[in-house]
Amino acid sequence: MRGFYIGRFQPYHNGHHHMVEEIADEVDEIVLGIGSAGDSHTRRNPFTAGERVMMVTKALGDLDVTTYVVPIEDLERNSVWVSHVQSMSPKFDVAYSNNPLVVRLFEEAGVEVRSSPMFRREVLEGSELRQRMIRGDGWKGLVPDEVAGTIEEIDGVDRIRQVASSDANGANDGVPTDRDAAPDPE
Amino acid sequence: MRGFYIGRFQPYHNGHHHMVEEIADEVDEIVLGIGSAGDSHTRRNPFTAGERVMMVTKALGDLDVTTYVVPIEDLERNSVWVSHVQSMSPKFDVAYSNNPLVVRLFEEAGVEVRSSPMFRREVLEGSELRQRMIRGDGWKGLVPDEVAGTIEEIDGVDRIRQVASSDANGANDGVPTDRDAAPDPE
Amino acid sequence: MRGFYIGRFQPYHNGHHHMVEEIADEVDEIVLGIGSAGDSHTRRNPFTAGERVMMVTKALGDLDVTTYVVPIEDLERNSVWVSHVQSMSPKFDVAYSNNPLVVRLFEEAGVEVRSSPMFRREVLEGSELRQRMIRGDGWKGLVPDEVAGTIEEIDGVDRIRQVASSDANGANDGVPTDRDAAPDPE
Amino acid sequence: MRGFYIGRFQPYHNGHHHMVEEIADEVDEIVLGIGSAGDSHTRRNPFTAGERVMMVTKALGDLDVTTYVVPIEDLERNSVWVSHVQSMSPKFDVAYSNNPLVVRLFEEAGVEVRSSPMFRREVLEGSELRQRMIRGDGWKGLVPDEVAGTIEEIDGVDRIRQVASSDANGANDGVPTDRDAAPDPE
Amino acid sequence: MRGFYIGRFQPYHNGHHHMVEEIADEVDEIVLGIGSAGDSHTRRNPFTAGERVMMVTKALGDLDVTTYVVPIEDLERNSVWVSHVQSMSPKFDVAYSNNPLVVRLFEEAGVEVRSSPMFRREVLEGSELRQRMIRGDGWKGLVPDEVAGTIEEIDGVDRIRQVASSDANGANDGVPTDRDAAPDPE
Amino acid sequence: MRGFYIGRFQPYHNGHHHMVEEIADEVDEIVLGIGSAGDSHTRRNPFTAGERVMMVTKALGDLDVTTYVVPIEDLERNSVWVSHVQSMSPKFDVAYSNNPLVVRLFEEAGVEVRSSPMFRREVLEGSELRQRMIRGDGWKGLVPDEVAGTIEEIDGVDRIRQVASSDANGANDGVPTDRDAAPDPE
Repeated sequence: MRGFYIGRFQPYHNGHHHMVEEIADEVDEIVLGIGSAGDSHTRRNPFTAGERVMMVTKALGDLDVTTYVVPIEDLERNSVWVSHVQSMSPKFDVAYSNNPLVVRLFEEAGVEVRSSPMFRREVLEGSELRQRMIRGDGWKGLVPDEVAGTIEEIDGVDRIRQVASSDANGANDGVPTDRDAAPDPE
Repeated sequence: MRGFYIGRFQPYHNGHHHMVEEIADEVDEIVLGIGSAGDSHTRRNPFTAGERVMMVTKALGDLDVTTYVVPIEDLERNSVWVSHVQSMSPKFDVAYSNNPLVVRLFEEAGVEVRSSPMFRREVLEGSELRQRMIRGDGWKGLVPDEVAGTIEEIDGVDRIRQVASSDANGANDGVPTDRDAAPDPE
Repeated sequence: MRGFYIGRFQPYHNGHHHMVEEIADEVDEIVLGIGSAGDSHTRRNPFTAGERVMMVTKALGDLDVTTYVVPIEDLERNSVWVSHVQSMSPKFDVAYSNNPLVVRLFEEAGVEVRSSPMFRREVLEGSELRQRMIRGDGWKGLVPDEVAGTIEEIDGVDRIRQVASSDANGANDGVPTDRDAAPDPE
Repeated sequence: MRGFYIGRFQPYHNGHHHMVEEIADEVDEIVLGIGSAGDSHTRRNPFTAGERVMMVTKALGDLDVTTYVVPIEDLERNSVWVSHVQSMSPKFDVAYSNNPLVVRLFEEAGVEVRSSPMFRREVLEGSELRQRMIRGDGWKGLVPDEVAGTIEEIDGVDRIRQVASSDANGANDGVPTDRDAAPDPE
Repeated sequence: MRGFYIGRFQPYHNGHHHMVEEIADEVDEIVLGIGSAGDSHTRRNPFTAGERVMMVTKALGDLDVTTYVVPIEDLERNSVWVSHVQSMSPKFDVAYSNNPLVVRLFEEAGVEVRSSPMFRREVLEGSELRQRMIRGDGWKGLVPDEVAGTIEEIDGVDRIRQVASSDANGANDGVPTDRDAAPDPE
Repeated sequence: MRGFYIGRFQPYHNGHHHMVEEIADEVDEIVLGIGSAGDSHTRRNPFTAGERVMMVTKALGDLDVTTYVVPIEDLERNSVWVSHVQSMSPKFDVAYSNNPLVVRLFEEAGVEVRSSPMFRREVLEGSELRQRMIRGDGWKGLVPDEVAGTIEEIDGVDRIRQVASSDANGANDGVPTDRDAAPDPE
């Protein structure tokens, strides 16, 4: 029995981690899909796929079940998204998500989906965490120790602050950086 | 004499249909281009290209002129968009549109364009129709019978409600689903 | 009951047409998928998707069953190809193909596939037909009348001869034009 | 010593030009990268890459240093953007930018970056210039003469006004045209 | 100290495995990049990225060093390939490869590369292994037990035989299936 | 009067240069399009677009007419190729080519094309030149001095030899590197 759990993990935090622990009680193996794998260096997606692979893998070190961590690049086509995920992941029996679109796409493809109120918490924390990093507030208590270590190693807080300032100072002519995958000089 | 008429047809409704009937008086054959063919499962683009092909083809069943229904995937390049459309469509002599950008692109490419006040109506109805589906208000009177039948067959109202809730509940971290072609879990 | 039949239709010929007639006996509606829709102007893929849509639609004019003709652009990913086809086509119950790869992909996706010895004939005729056009041999007897008419209207024989010469005169530095989607000057 | 300076140059104006003159004092050769080269025909990106190449090249005619003008298409991947730029440009020793994201990406790739308060001015003028064109206010004094000439030759003011009206009249169903690379009829 | 080792792993075999064991003596952590991650269902690339992730992860179960297994989709641009790899992988200090192009690209990007005669063996075995599967000869002795188990679980031998026959029977009109990412019916 | 002349310029050699001089007699301004701009580091396309921009620009230094040098990335769609070229280039009145496919595409788009027997020579020299570089034979006499200088500066001969060996030693499993845009380890 193998479960699939997708997130952007920008960064991987305690909300995600509790969710994974809950899933670990229900399945033999877990696949963690790193969504929007091609995005990085924006306020909303500060970390590369590789950096997120490292965070997640290290944080899962103690877990008893076998885990796979696979980056999933966006295909920009909702109708083929499930097939794309399936091709990048070891075959799975159940998907875990609370996102209505993700749930719908898996269900239309005939994949069993399980939702949980815990997902809600994890969603809120992602945005809050990045805000704290930008403002300089405390955030390390909200993520596993291994994640905090990785973010420090890659100078992550400095990066998110710098790219966030692209929005704030108007340098991008009013278009939020998070929409632009490429730098947007005038 | 062949005319080209493009729309997203999300869904195909009476405004579109009256427009097609008007065009049918002026040309021998009509090509209907299904725009943003790769988009689906969002609040703004709930239906796949194939579902829209079916809606349109069935609704046009009684029309006297020969019709072609061709999906047109986005190329993300305004400057080559006319060539792209021309390569996917039987050769046409005149394009029908009221969208200033579409009009401009066809004109710069030397294609005759005809506009009509009727287009305005059709535009307004698309957004209104989807709102009604989401809110549970009446909408079947605004579309040809064949379209209502197709939407029921594919469980379309349930789908648009579910994907629309991705926006409403904040699960996407503030980014409207319609901007994201791929599911966007935190 | 709806059947799906894919081909490149470069051009649509009698082998295809007999196949469609056979399928028409088994289903209520037929979807014809125009494969490699983005390819054109090569020895192997001389005609645009739009030109092929016109050929096929006109040749099917007398058929009793409802037909849909949909261009299918290549996605370059075998693992998501079936989902892509399904998103571009009205929902279908059975796929017709004799191509082992197509058969395999549909089967792995749980779609019923029917094969027929007639497919073999159609395959051979495509290549033979294009050779005859290039060499100036007779070819009109091998295609429906409407197809011959369309090819003349678009000056098709002249085109295939001209692009075929890109290979023959070495202008492409030894790389066959059919591999190159973009012109390949030295 | 070669310097790289990227901008969208929609259009190239006096703010850019002063910046280039300042850079010319520091380097032997200048590469001007035309960013978002694939975008055109929107309110924010009205001109094609080719039109911008022409504007910039003509405006730089009197400059003493050797200049290269290279279109840079968006790759939609921040993490490979520097490599992409480097592959399209003659090798450069220093990059000039005031955009925090651009600065960050070059620095992470080990490229020296120089910023200047002058960049700020150039940013503000781009948006203001396009507004003036749309409203019919004076704008020619803000750009080099050669740029004004090019914009007239390509009927540029008429174009930006027409595409800008796609937003204003609601024809795009609420989605600003600048986000849509493809025309967006309902 | 982290090492990066890329292969297509179609499938992962003893030659790869011995190489990994040798690398494990030199580094603290190993990243295995699954190349051409988007390719599958061809004679040359029969297995999906997800299937290869499973093979490799299971075969590495006993290894003492920390391992990461990351799919790397092709970007079709040699000049940005190293950046792409770096964005998908945890940061690495040395790359292992014997492929002259891979070596060149890493070296031009300033990454240390180590080669080994053992790579040669691994290369030859991949092609030989797939031939044996197609012909029905013995192959299980050439791969780790976990790989043989995975291939059986996914019915891999049957798949490679079926897609290989697309070439052999001419159904693809002379173009080898391995070149075509999309099915290629006539 | 502006002329457009496209080539891959791998590298720019005397055959190209004589052609440009001939064109310079007929037009006021010349646009040189650098084809397959995204390709590099292969036996057939060893140099990046940026390196080729530098070669061509330097070699054209003495020319009396205004010249523009623009990289043209492949779009993989013959039917939109002319529009793509037109969007990347200053507007031109006549295209120069001897490649039958290029000629055909421009003619179908209504662009005047001029051919010349000199093109033939240029084609042969490209392949011959690269062979000489690989074999270590003399080649500098076949290119303008500025091109020889640029190739030395970027260590070009060493690069083409190294990537060419990817083919020769079988490391790519029988698929020539020139077909693979991404490195292809087994």
